[in-house]
Amino acid sequence: MKALLHAEKAGIEGLSYGELTEVNPGPGEVRVRLKTAGLNHRDLFILHRHKPTDPPLVVGSDGAGVIDAVGDGVVGVEVGDEVMINPGLGWKEVSDVPPEGFEIVGLPDHGTFAEQIIVPAENAVAKPAHLSWEEAGVLSLAALTAYRALFTRGKVRSGMNVFIPGIGGGVATFLLQFAKAAGAKVYVTSRSQEKREKALQLGAEAALASNEDWEQALAGVKMDLVIESVGAATINKSLKQLRRGGTIVTFGSSTGDTVEINLRDFFYGQYNLLGSTMGSGEEYKNMIEFITEHKIKPVLDQMYQLEDFTDAFKRLEEAKQLGKIGFYVG
Amino acid sequence: MKALLHAEKAGIEGLSYGELTEVNPGPGEVRVRLKTAGLNHRDLFILHRHKPTDPPLVVGSDGAGVIDAVGDGVVGVEVGDEVMINPGLGWKEVSDVPPEGFEIVGLPDHGTFAEQIIVPAENAVAKPAHLSWEEAGVLSLAALTAYRALFTRGKVRSGMNVFIPGIGGGVATFLLQFAKAAGAKVYVTSRSQEKREKALQLGAEAALASNEDWEQALAGVKMDLVIESVGAATINKSLKQLRRGGTIVTFGSSTGDTVEINLRDFFYGQYNLLGSTMGSGEEYKNMIEFITEHKIKPVLDQMYQLEDFTDAFKRLEEAKQLGKIGFYVG
Repeated sequence: MKALLHAEKAGIEGLSYGELTEVNPGPGEVRVRLKTAGLNHRDLFILHRHKPTDPPLVVGSDGAGVIDAVGDGVVGVEVGDEVMINPGLGWKEVSDVPPEGFEIVGLPDHGTFAEQIIVPAENAVAKPAHLSWEEAGVLSLAALTAYRALFTRGKVRSGMNVFIPGIGGGVATFLLQFAKAAGAKVYVTSRSQEKREKALQLGAEAALASNEDWEQALAGVKMDLVIESVGAATINKSLKQLRRGGTIVTFGSSTGDTVEINLRDFFYGQYNLLGSTMGSGEEYKNMIEFITEHKIKPVLDQMYQLEDFTDAFKRLEEAKQLGKIGFYVG
Repeated sequence: MKALLHAEKAGIEGLSYGELTEVNPGPGEVRVRLKTAGLNHRDLFILHRHKPTDPPLVVGSDGAGVIDAVGDGVVGVEVGDEVMINPGLGWKEVSDVPPEGFEIVGLPDHGTFAEQIIVPAENAVAKPAHLSWEEAGVLSLAALTAYRALFTRGKVRSGMNVFIPGIGGGVATFLLQFAKAAGAKVYVTSRSQEKREKALQLGAEAALASNEDWEQALAGVKMDLVIESVGAATINKSLKQLRRGGTIVTFGSSTGDTVEINLRDFFYGQYNLLGSTMGSGEEYKNMIEFITEHKIKPVLDQMYQLEDFTDAFKRLEEAKQLGKIGFYVG
């Protein structure tokens, strides 16, 4: 089968489009013939985390396709089922942290940038009918991260004011769509005029420029919940928009990890700072139910043939995308 | 009536033991003839926060005594009741932050360092029989702060490992007693050998020196919950003792407010950092029930006559106490 393999060199230069031997699913596993796959920042990191001296690795965490082989003892899914891949391996129920042995599809096990993938049967989840193959392929990792941050950790409720600094990326776009569907009022920021306009189309109450005075622009509106992935550049500005007793969930720090916090302001404000990551299988299923109920679709940036991987990875690396980048892999 | 008044000068020099006119309780209020009162760090701060140009102020937040007059419309308490003062004014039910208008007894309203105090009837709470007057007088503010940090915010449960850096102060001692009574295993730190020994007597599993290597001393035991009031000097060391997904509650920063946090470590660890303050009337009543059920008594340092206030305030300022400092005021 055709696959995008990482070997020999760190970074994009280590990627090559080539052949990999087909394998059969083991007990409890299924083989999915993938149609589409989605590109995430994680795939860029993996090109530096996967040792070039280790055996070649198929990268990629997101994908969708049709089950074409089923291992012994598998119940609940069968050949011909249209499925999406839940990329979290070994984390079943909602819990505060994943169990020992938790891994994400695409390292150390082969990922989705290939014609086929073998996953545990529980990680092949029925594709909602309202999603196209393109949409189903790019959704999983970002939507699951957004779901856990917003619902499990942030406990978003109807009527809340939710603030999302840095609305460009895939997770942030889902955060906006999910929070809006949950009945919250959503405020966002971005450096890009185009991304601010897109956010307003998706239902944001206001879209602030990154460099404007947020406090002034919000004119006294305080946030019940902030979902932060920008990090050093925004976290203290974000804290200032929070109402006393409000919650800030952090799952990323794209502008830097080290931040200075004033503890006295923090405890007098009775704030909550909660760390979050991607989530469990239970949260994945709840997320799929939620997007099905609310007919939520990912914002698609651009689809590529897998052999054009260099253009796709570079587009993500240069942050030129608006929404999710996908591949046709089948 | 006799009272300790603050006027004219900031700090301890502005205090004088003198006379104040007796007043009668208004509608919904009671007058309590105080027997004892307790000294808190707050009383030291107040001597700098209360403007010497404003009318003289009776400081003090903690006290216990007997109701000797009842205003119109008061139900549930009567003259002769033995009561403790809940120092939180205008915060009835548990909530994430106090309502607008919330104040603490002792600024701007007169406090407990006097023969009498007028408070809303709901702030006069029946004294548990197992407490002496000395114990009842020094308990409220510190025990309420500990209760909210540990139960409402930290959600302590039986079997948890709880870490309390800086075991010297009044709140920390209650934290140790409450956590122990709730079935947790409690680990503490202190600079003082004497305080470490006292903590072990009160049931701590281990008492670490402030300057030793905590990670090594704890030999792999990780904490479910850390209650932090030391601040800059310890917060990152405390975070390192926390299990992934664990919670750190902060309600003080005696060694400095500004702290540097690594956000990436924080969100990968899925930690929770929660600010806390003193609590509501509902939490006060739950706290009184809890100490009654578990027969918890405050650790008493020393009792003073109110006219010897200078010695008492200096003892607190120099952190020489072990447990609570109290006054005989009646």
